[in-house]
Amino acid sequence: MAGSVFGRLFRIMTWGESHGKAVGVVIDGCPAGLSLCEADIQALLDKRRPGQGPLSTPRKEADRVEILSGVFEGKTTGTPLSLLVRNEDQRSRDYSQIAEIYRPGHADYPFDAKYGFRDYRGGGRSSGRETIGRVAAGAVAGKLLGECGIQVESRVIRVGGIDIPWDEAEPFALPAGLSVEAGNSLGGVVECRAEGLPAGLGETVFDKLDARLSQAVMSIGAVKGVEIGDGFAAADLLGSENNDPFCLDEEGRIAKKTNHAGGTLGGMSDGSPLILRAAIKPTPSISLPQKTVNRSGEETEIQISGRHDICIAPRAAVVVTSMVSLVLADALLENLGARMEYVRTIYQR
Amino acid sequence: MAGSVFGRLFRIMTWGESHGKAVGVVIDGCPAGLSLCEADIQALLDKRRPGQGPLSTPRKEADRVEILSGVFEGKTTGTPLSLLVRNEDQRSRDYSQIAEIYRPGHADYPFDAKYGFRDYRGGGRSSGRETIGRVAAGAVAGKLLGECGIQVESRVIRVGGIDIPWDEAEPFALPAGLSVEAGNSLGGVVECRAEGLPAGLGETVFDKLDARLSQAVMSIGAVKGVEIGDGFAAADLLGSENNDPFCLDEEGRIAKKTNHAGGTLGGMSDGSPLILRAAIKPTPSISLPQKTVNRSGEETEIQISGRHDICIAPRAAVVVTSMVSLVLADALLENLGARMEYVRTIYQR
Amino acid sequence: MAGSVFGRLFRIMTWGESHGKAVGVVIDGCPAGLSLCEADIQALLDKRRPGQGPLSTPRKEADRVEILSGVFEGKTTGTPLSLLVRNEDQRSRDYSQIAEIYRPGHADYPFDAKYGFRDYRGGGRSSGRETIGRVAAGAVAGKLLGECGIQVESRVIRVGGIDIPWDEAEPFALPAGLSVEAGNSLGGVVECRAEGLPAGLGETVFDKLDARLSQAVMSIGAVKGVEIGDGFAAADLLGSENNDPFCLDEEGRIAKKTNHAGGTLGGMSDGSPLILRAAIKPTPSISLPQKTVNRSGEETEIQISGRHDICIAPRAAVVVTSMVSLVLADALLENLGARMEYVRTIYQR
Amino acid sequence: MAGSVFGRLFRIMTWGESHGKAVGVVIDGCPAGLSLCEADIQALLDKRRPGQGPLSTPRKEADRVEILSGVFEGKTTGTPLSLLVRNEDQRSRDYSQIAEIYRPGHADYPFDAKYGFRDYRGGGRSSGRETIGRVAAGAVAGKLLGECGIQVESRVIRVGGIDIPWDEAEPFALPAGLSVEAGNSLGGVVECRAEGLPAGLGETVFDKLDARLSQAVMSIGAVKGVEIGDGFAAADLLGSENNDPFCLDEEGRIAKKTNHAGGTLGGMSDGSPLILRAAIKPTPSISLPQKTVNRSGEETEIQISGRHDICIAPRAAVVVTSMVSLVLADALLENLGARMEYVRTIYQR
Repeated sequence: MAGSVFGRLFRIMTWGESHGKAVGVVIDGCPAGLSLCEADIQALLDKRRPGQGPLSTPRKEADRVEILSGVFEGKTTGTPLSLLVRNEDQRSRDYSQIAEIYRPGHADYPFDAKYGFRDYRGGGRSSGRETIGRVAAGAVAGKLLGECGIQVESRVIRVGGIDIPWDEAEPFALPAGLSVEAGNSLGGVVECRAEGLPAGLGETVFDKLDARLSQAVMSIGAVKGVEIGDGFAAADLLGSENNDPFCLDEEGRIAKKTNHAGGTLGGMSDGSPLILRAAIKPTPSISLPQKTVNRSGEETEIQISGRHDICIAPRAAVVVTSMVSLVLADALLENLGARMEYVRTIYQR
Repeated sequence: MAGSVFGRLFRIMTWGESHGKAVGVVIDGCPAGLSLCEADIQALLDKRRPGQGPLSTPRKEADRVEILSGVFEGKTTGTPLSLLVRNEDQRSRDYSQIAEIYRPGHADYPFDAKYGFRDYRGGGRSSGRETIGRVAAGAVAGKLLGECGIQVESRVIRVGGIDIPWDEAEPFALPAGLSVEAGNSLGGVVECRAEGLPAGLGETVFDKLDARLSQAVMSIGAVKGVEIGDGFAAADLLGSENNDPFCLDEEGRIAKKTNHAGGTLGGMSDGSPLILRAAIKPTPSISLPQKTVNRSGEETEIQISGRHDICIAPRAAVVVTSMVSLVLADALLENLGARMEYVRTIYQR
Repeated sequence: MAGSVFGRLFRIMTWGESHGKAVGVVIDGCPAGLSLCEADIQALLDKRRPGQGPLSTPRKEADRVEILSGVFEGKTTGTPLSLLVRNEDQRSRDYSQIAEIYRPGHADYPFDAKYGFRDYRGGGRSSGRETIGRVAAGAVAGKLLGECGIQVESRVIRVGGIDIPWDEAEPFALPAGLSVEAGNSLGGVVECRAEGLPAGLGETVFDKLDARLSQAVMSIGAVKGVEIGDGFAAADLLGSENNDPFCLDEEGRIAKKTNHAGGTLGGMSDGSPLILRAAIKPTPSISLPQKTVNRSGEETEIQISGRHDICIAPRAAVVVTSMVSLVLADALLENLGARMEYVRTIYQR
Repeated sequence: MAGSVFGRLFRIMTWGESHGKAVGVVIDGCPAGLSLCEADIQALLDKRRPGQGPLSTPRKEADRVEILSGVFEGKTTGTPLSLLVRNEDQRSRDYSQIAEIYRPGHADYPFDAKYGFRDYRGGGRSSGRETIGRVAAGAVAGKLLGECGIQVESRVIRVGGIDIPWDEAEPFALPAGLSVEAGNSLGGVVECRAEGLPAGLGETVFDKLDARLSQAVMSIGAVKGVEIGDGFAAADLLGSENNDPFCLDEEGRIAKKTNHAGGTLGGMSDGSPLILRAAIKPTPSISLPQKTVNRSGEETEIQISGRHDICIAPRAAVVVTSMVSLVLADALLENLGARMEYVRTIYQR
């Protein structure tokens, strides 16, 4: 349980450091009979790739995914899918500074405190490259959801304190008029929406859909807050304002007039779109000088060189989509066992 | 995996509906040799009880906990602790309205959608009484943490849009000058602080400490948002503002000059106090008339009678403390396996 | 993970010592809509009860089960089922001998080695009363299986070295002509058969149906061996003898001419009856004098008094049935997620 | 939970089909600071390799393992270890027969029944190559155990009905005087012994050490029975014969005079050597003609060509060692949380 396993029925294990030979993920529990090829996965991975706009690091990563197992004649077989991406752009460089000095805002110090030592090259397991496995698996989960009519999408709706309307959000673009000092970085907010969910997904009590989503999204390195629906704003509303009245839609199905709840009630989907927001902290890797300490317990200063994203939010949005897709795929599979009626449907045919 | 199990090594299973015979929890994995008696648990349960102030329902619940197993001669034995609280205050009343009409803001509709039918009396498993098991288990986790020098505390720091400084927070009191229309309700924000954590608790990737805390806290019925440290405010900061510089404290140990991160870096504790906030939605049970639909799919109106909290935040704070304690106790136990050095410490004695 | 949780989707947590206030089990994940009342559970518990024949202890235990949660209007609601049995027959007696002296064949010594101390009264958590929770949960699992046309039954087919044909097996009776010295005890073999299983239950690799069954059955205190189909005898066969030829049955469905495999192939059910055997060791509680050591590390002798089963196999058979039922119920629920075809059946209605 | 994950704290996920690009395993939860290189793993993999004696298939597989992550400067970092072995010896051949006809004794039919379709080339995920991931992970577990003074070894002690004394057992050799008809196959029994275990490993109730070992070993494709200590023979003993008297060894430590129990009491290690036996069925791939049915539901005959082991037991022994090592490594790590005393040892330094 050292933390690299996620999911219950649609279960993944990711692996790999930034400067190892490769990164990857194994998926266990994807149902048999899902059409799947490398291009399905590559499409989402390409959106995560750096070098796509002014906010992003100019580093180039090809990040070609290879399916090593679990697919036969273009369909999943129900056995584990092993997905691998080789690490290619590993500049040989001098890591002696990072090896000895704890970077503020990074995991260097607690990593040492926990494990006694660490792979310091490029952040090791805490590098952004760790998310490649999440995205590759998220793409498979997204394919499964699509077969059930569910679509998940994330956009950056705030950068550096400036709101960006959902419909105007363009990935990888700075909001007009925003500038940032060279060597500094910006945070942002990502919103994720999932449409097409049936009511009743998610378990009760600890495995509420919003609880599992929170774990999933907060587990992304740069995320410091998660909210569902109105979230923190709901704390300032009256009950009469926050409660969403039920109504019937044009086809006579149960719907809600408003969606303050963001698509969940009692931890289960309520049939409205799921709305989740994640707070993304500013990239901790900045090239301005920073005060810190070294492994020998001396105060010192560090100035981080190298290529870094000014704002990680656009790339984080792809990871948010992936994590939400993984949770929803899992919830779909878990829900199959909710009723004797479903059980009988399968076994009494 | 229907959702009532929480934790990996310090593992709990809660059970019970508001109008069943009892509610309770079983804890599996509490180490042997922890001093424990019913009073240890009762103290925290009493803080959760209703009827303690103007914000709270006048309903009286004695909520006496009984330890049914796992303690011998005043100490835990390492075997499961079964904790039980009888349901006493079950007024016999007419539930036909709730049985047929979906209450806005409640889990009634998705419960029906998921399971096909439900125990509609008093919210069933979605009732606030479900949290009794969490608090009873949280008290045991808190006892274990105390033995390792860790203290967890939560306070209401905002109600109805008005901030309350941490040091002035008084549980169960409305902020001065705040009033609310009869029959309506208020939300709030709970802050939780944990002091005394060693650096390096929490796993990497999916089981980051903040990720597990988020699941834990978001799984509380009324919570709609969770943030660590500066949380959503961090999204508006520059990297140079948000990064906490490391320094040495008076005793020469590694510390941080600021704590924007709220005590976690890379998902592991960093030795600073853990700071977490939870957004609590206004109590959905209000006695004002609300538009809704019934099980037969007809639009109708509902007016909820009965005794309800004006603001659930003060009682939710006790549940937040409990959930945070459960996550930290689990993280402590998991961390024991992080290093060969620890393993050798135990087995080569 | 201290060991009292079993199952993945149909998940149980048992608790309770022999001399505590009660023993019980919580079941999380039973689908909603299963008819269930206390009598359904009591029936199986009564078969497990002592005092039913010459092989059994004359101790009387009423063992009345109480359902504390999870059932409404005679049907499961999908929320946790809490089942409780009060401990009644706790003679107050002198445990000082057991407290200090390690009984051969019992868990006393490793319990102390693991936890540092233990509840020594009547075996504590290692007592046979621990199985009450298993049987209560097994009865619920059996009800679920029955709804899918699956029947599970166990019989004692060997006692004290003498075979008893399946059709002549009478629970709680010594084979004719077998006698045992007063104060000594006998072992036996239990066979369990499950009929009505569809082909394809069980997962591949580590969660093969036979692997999960083995864990389940070997976890019963007295069991020292488990085999499926021909088991150890298969090790002496030729491939041509052991392979079961496939054929078509009268209705043209795929069947097997023989069943050396005992109903599993590659860890999945193959449509033939499941056949499993468990080796039950002789009851370790015997009243003959035995050499042993005490907690102070001195060699000594012990003579165990009290009421004990001569042969535990008849009562163990009920526990075997329960554990097999739990595994099969779990496997049924897990299998629902095996195919996209099943997923679409539920979500595209 | 489709079955390819094993372990709780020392957790592995295996993947790969016989005719895919590669097979492998990811290990999550190996403590940081364990010395590890590819040669450590290759040594055990080489013992599993075919082509090493008259009982084995002449197929040559190089099976070179590659560590893709989790090791830095010759030591584990606490992050996932990804181990990969390329599939090399994939003769292109005609699989049309296997694709259409269900082989007796193989998983073909239940695979189709479960998933609707399958990768039929060389057995797919049910191939013996699936065990490469187990052995690679088992080698790492074995390294960890070695650091704690625990040694695990397995030998073939019976082939084709003939016993082979432990001390005379030579891997990959037929017992003298044993012959088998060309095209047929033999079964056998593997015994595994683990020395150096401290008393008290293993959890109580469902996760007893013997229960977890049984799942682990029974999950190996060819295994049909598992027993601990005297196993099925214990069922024929008297209590007075089967109970192992405790005594003091030469150094005054608690020991047992006999070891009928095979090293476990109440599911925990008792300090004596662990002894486990597994029944290995005869290789189902035989070249004699066999009656069977095809996918179209017609009775037919099959004659399996290709290179197959006459007796899989010698190679299975390596897999048994691996699975036992994985369970013991997991039990060691779990045991660290058994006592407050251990917890304080780590956190109050």
